[in-house]
Amino acid sequence: MKIRGIITPMLTPFRPDGEIDYDSTGKLLSYLKSIGVTGVFPNGSTGLFPFLSMEERMRFLEFVIENSRGMKVLAGIGSSSTQESIRLGKHAKDAGADALVLMPTYYITPGQEEIRRHFDDVISSVRKETFIYNIPQLCGARIEPSTVERLISGHSEIIGLKESSADMRYFSEIMQFSGPDFSIFQGQDDLLIPSMAIGADGGVCGLTNFSDHVVMAFKAFSAGKFQEASRIQVEKINPLLRSLLVSRFPSAYYYAFYRKFSIKGGFRSPMVELSADGKSAVDKLLSQ
Amino acid sequence: MKIRGIITPMLTPFRPDGEIDYDSTGKLLSYLKSIGVTGVFPNGSTGLFPFLSMEERMRFLEFVIENSRGMKVLAGIGSSSTQESIRLGKHAKDAGADALVLMPTYYITPGQEEIRRHFDDVISSVRKETFIYNIPQLCGARIEPSTVERLISGHSEIIGLKESSADMRYFSEIMQFSGPDFSIFQGQDDLLIPSMAIGADGGVCGLTNFSDHVVMAFKAFSAGKFQEASRIQVEKINPLLRSLLVSRFPSAYYYAFYRKFSIKGGFRSPMVELSADGKSAVDKLLSQ
Amino acid sequence: MKIRGIITPMLTPFRPDGEIDYDSTGKLLSYLKSIGVTGVFPNGSTGLFPFLSMEERMRFLEFVIENSRGMKVLAGIGSSSTQESIRLGKHAKDAGADALVLMPTYYITPGQEEIRRHFDDVISSVRKETFIYNIPQLCGARIEPSTVERLISGHSEIIGLKESSADMRYFSEIMQFSGPDFSIFQGQDDLLIPSMAIGADGGVCGLTNFSDHVVMAFKAFSAGKFQEASRIQVEKINPLLRSLLVSRFPSAYYYAFYRKFSIKGGFRSPMVELSADGKSAVDKLLSQ
Amino acid sequence: MKIRGIITPMLTPFRPDGEIDYDSTGKLLSYLKSIGVTGVFPNGSTGLFPFLSMEERMRFLEFVIENSRGMKVLAGIGSSSTQESIRLGKHAKDAGADALVLMPTYYITPGQEEIRRHFDDVISSVRKETFIYNIPQLCGARIEPSTVERLISGHSEIIGLKESSADMRYFSEIMQFSGPDFSIFQGQDDLLIPSMAIGADGGVCGLTNFSDHVVMAFKAFSAGKFQEASRIQVEKINPLLRSLLVSRFPSAYYYAFYRKFSIKGGFRSPMVELSADGKSAVDKLLSQ
Repeated sequence: MKIRGIITPMLTPFRPDGEIDYDSTGKLLSYLKSIGVTGVFPNGSTGLFPFLSMEERMRFLEFVIENSRGMKVLAGIGSSSTQESIRLGKHAKDAGADALVLMPTYYITPGQEEIRRHFDDVISSVRKETFIYNIPQLCGARIEPSTVERLISGHSEIIGLKESSADMRYFSEIMQFSGPDFSIFQGQDDLLIPSMAIGADGGVCGLTNFSDHVVMAFKAFSAGKFQEASRIQVEKINPLLRSLLVSRFPSAYYYAFYRKFSIKGGFRSPMVELSADGKSAVDKLLSQ
Repeated sequence: MKIRGIITPMLTPFRPDGEIDYDSTGKLLSYLKSIGVTGVFPNGSTGLFPFLSMEERMRFLEFVIENSRGMKVLAGIGSSSTQESIRLGKHAKDAGADALVLMPTYYITPGQEEIRRHFDDVISSVRKETFIYNIPQLCGARIEPSTVERLISGHSEIIGLKESSADMRYFSEIMQFSGPDFSIFQGQDDLLIPSMAIGADGGVCGLTNFSDHVVMAFKAFSAGKFQEASRIQVEKINPLLRSLLVSRFPSAYYYAFYRKFSIKGGFRSPMVELSADGKSAVDKLLSQ
Repeated sequence: MKIRGIITPMLTPFRPDGEIDYDSTGKLLSYLKSIGVTGVFPNGSTGLFPFLSMEERMRFLEFVIENSRGMKVLAGIGSSSTQESIRLGKHAKDAGADALVLMPTYYITPGQEEIRRHFDDVISSVRKETFIYNIPQLCGARIEPSTVERLISGHSEIIGLKESSADMRYFSEIMQFSGPDFSIFQGQDDLLIPSMAIGADGGVCGLTNFSDHVVMAFKAFSAGKFQEASRIQVEKINPLLRSLLVSRFPSAYYYAFYRKFSIKGGFRSPMVELSADGKSAVDKLLSQ
Repeated sequence: MKIRGIITPMLTPFRPDGEIDYDSTGKLLSYLKSIGVTGVFPNGSTGLFPFLSMEERMRFLEFVIENSRGMKVLAGIGSSSTQESIRLGKHAKDAGADALVLMPTYYITPGQEEIRRHFDDVISSVRKETFIYNIPQLCGARIEPSTVERLISGHSEIIGLKESSADMRYFSEIMQFSGPDFSIFQGQDDLLIPSMAIGADGGVCGLTNFSDHVVMAFKAFSAGKFQEASRIQVEKINPLLRSLLVSRFPSAYYYAFYRKFSIKGGFRSPMVELSADGKSAVDKLLSQ
């Protein structure tokens, strides 16, 4: 299964009392279908999976699969524990996810040996198409290219890689693994077009939760309209992303989403509401 | 409750099949009592709490409390989720822990506002003596001195701070909060005596899982034998710690512990066994 | 003056006794002309300017200008001292350089205010076309986009920016300043095509001292052959760069240059010769 | 020659026009003698040596030696160039300095091999008592303990080490080289007492340019008054240092010095004057 396109790392909408808001999740899926994303990635970092219990993650995934409207569902099964990733992986497979997205364990900083054992154990136990997820700024270690190579050669289940390090030098090196059966996605919205210029298959882009600029840039590039793609990247996507990052991640994303869809949403602890300054900055952007 | 002395951040012994080994846990507690540690800290980073399920953590804590032989029990209740820390805190209180040790949430990098909300929510929900635990290299953010100040002034339950950043400049600044009702512990074995020289109340020192050098240094310093304390620090503790850190944390600690007590122990995934080189380095040290 | 193309940050060839080797400098300039670079940048980091005296830098620049064969000469006038940059700038202007390349002062980590004062003082004193040079990994601080904006609006002499941070997120942000009178160059060989995809005017690429791959990639991209440009980037440029960076910068570059042109060259202190392993790695690459 | 005590890394006073102010330098030396510092270290980082020409550095050193009033003079001979360090070292020896202070070359990030060649070449050429100066945050690389060991065993001229990394773990490791013929100095004011607790011979402390707290703490510790030393460290030195570091280094130090001695001083480019906020913060501290 080779995937190309834009994937949305889905937010997990919350109600004012902090519980998951399934009505708003449905609205989000409907919006994503309408703007043309290829797939959705629930239970990722943008979805704040570390704030959810195992049971919440499973229930949320099931809801997304039931309401996916033909979009691919890539299920996040990351955890600080190999055992939990296995449990989540088996559930996702049974629930009908199209593929899994697996990251190294975190908190206890993993070495390359630990990364390898984790992927080996989870993939061998679950046996399902899997994307490697590299996000060293949150996991504490990056997956070295030599580790990527050994994982790919050892597991035919690995069908791609999501690269969110924001380090284009690493990304550029990883592109050596790209091929007809292996997809590489850029996980940073502001690096989408630079990455596609060296062959990336698309992006996993958080802005799509409330904006279609990224999809437009992808479509322009795919149609050979390089200057238009470049213009959308520099003039639309980058300023929007910068403004959101000035405020705190992930609060700014959640505020933007709630605002866009007029949802009275909540911020599960330890998240805090956006400051008044942060709110007016986001308001200004969304009204443009 | 003011605590002084050496606290052991306990390893969680595993059997070869990866399950918790309670027999060896009993041996460890007996050893710790014999060398004179003041308290034990189960379910901390050295205990690899992120590799344990909620149920395992609770059961392990209960066992430690039942077998604490008069040593204080400081229960680690860290989690990536505020809700889980609350659940662990309530359990630890009911189970009879002497105090809780609470860190910021991790993976999703917390800001100072998120750190504050997390501590506020957990402490208000649990209401039990609590140590603040600063370990920015694993949580992704340090607890700024101004945040420490606000937490202390807002919660009479906070009775101390465990500082594991290895940044003595930060430690030196934090010492302003030391007082008759507030204990400050150094979490890095190699910084114990420098910290006590500016008033630290002791250390939370991982080497005590298989060595008594740290306790000896603490006792020498407390008895006014500063040169002896300094000598143990520089000539005994530091080389031992360096040798362990050359090999991977935490595998080297677990190997040293299993070796010291002739335990046939295991390494729960994603941990990997120590390399042959690592093993012989540890062997050499332990035989000195 | 708008410049597009590939610029070579020139090595400063040394004789075995450590003195500058002008014969080899002539050979290098001849080679650069033959492969089609647009301009040369003597006295940059690749040229090891901090190891040269003020007098050597001036004499070397004069030689390059005299032997530039129609290539543009962008003179590096970086220094840890504003006064020295002014002196170098006046000399370069008088000697006939086409433009200057100015970086922040270094060693004493500059703030944005100090960066601004340095650029203000040098540009106002010298009055010559100038490129801003951002290289935070060596200067200790990056030139914030807001500082770039203020410098551009304050000095009509500023005609472009050389960006060597390897941070594509920053590069992507800086692209907002691109325009018909303002050139932006990528300073990292492995980020050339990603940068051109969002509008960069070319690159300042060290590999051109002994390889023409970068020029080929630039020409392919400029001719609309995007896939060929991408292929040269990923399959030719990146592996070559990685192999050189495994060995020490700058020794590997100097060894590769001496080898390519069969020069018996030297390594001025504190440079050291490449290890045997490093040499054979470079040999293998150059023979491909 | 074994040195113990507090050394002052001297500021280089400037006149309003940016030239060196020798009258104020005389006042500074007179003050340093009066508060009891053991030695002075001109042409160090605090003295902003990278902003001075070779000729200024030599003339300034000569003035300090002529007016040293019995204090030891440790001459800073750091440079980005081995050749310049040799030239400065020969001059300092001839001018009568008591010892030299030599750091790795900087800007071009040195490896351990380059660090070794630099020290080898300078010490062999100059042949004069020398302190190794470790300041990785400005030089780009730290001097590994194994490199320190090789340098010491290779050069009997090396009589000590100034350690300014602010990394107490490194400092603690370096203490293994302390001995009757080898002095180790802490270069960070806020780490003085922690360092003396494990055997440091004193400190190279910038606050002494306008405050005697550091000397008082050193004297208290040396007299066995550990609690008093600790109190001065935590209650006097640390808050003063923090307040200065909130404003920009080195401008805050220069402002504090000018203010203390009612000097109408200058800020050589690229330095900028302290902001109004910075000034009032320093004013408040100095009036305490």
